[in-house]
Amino acid sequence: MTASTIACCAPIAREPLGETEAAELAVLLKAVADPVRLRLLSMIGSHAGGEACVCDLTDAFDLTAPTISHHLKVLRTAGLIDSERRGTWVYYWIVPETVNRLGALFAPLAEPAAI
Amino acid sequence: MTASTIACCAPIAREPLGETEAAELAVLLKAVADPVRLRLLSMIGSHAGGEACVCDLTDAFDLTAPTISHHLKVLRTAGLIDSERRGTWVYYWIVPETVNRLGALFAPLAEPAAI
Repeated sequence: MTASTIACCAPIAREPLGETEAAELAVLLKAVADPVRLRLLSMIGSHAGGEACVCDLTDAFDLTAPTISHHLKVLRTAGLIDSERRGTWVYYWIVPETVNRLGALFAPLAEPAAI
Repeated sequence: MTASTIACCAPIAREPLGETEAAELAVLLKAVADPVRLRLLSMIGSHAGGEACVCDLTDAFDLTAPTISHHLKVLRTAGLIDSERRGTWVYYWIVPETVNRLGALFAPLAEPAAI
């Protein structure tokens, strides 16, 4: 009873998702379902000041600049990050509203009571 | 200051993810990055008693039984659901530990202070 009461608060376990919402969320999840994009997202989000220059991101990967740019574009198109050019460099930051939508979908779920 | 203090608590924005963790999480995210699998997960989680018979799941979709079975298998292989045969039917339930891992990754992120 306690477990199901708490579990009720996680949208994924509260009621069946509609087709439209499921389709939108799947697009968002596909954007993050990649190791490089997850790492880029965490590097951007954890960077001092909450934003990172593309010049801060490339060194951690054994990938070409166009490949990194492609992954950043996927994250940006999904609305997970936004960017702005300032002089030579493009700066990226996380869009919390979009990331929060994923967090709200999956949490919190209680541990189940003994079954 | 307040925003970044709160944002620190979302693992995705707290520190760069390591390669191994990012690879594991990407596998998990790929499993849920599909509209049918998201709907199946929410139907199982929200079903009375926290578990659903495969017979409860098929009617909502215009898909064949083998296709539904394939999607259930992807969720099960990823550790997002577990199942047990009882008599004629197979019953499925959510594994909260795995779903919580996704919730913890993306939440909570604060709304940004005015930029």
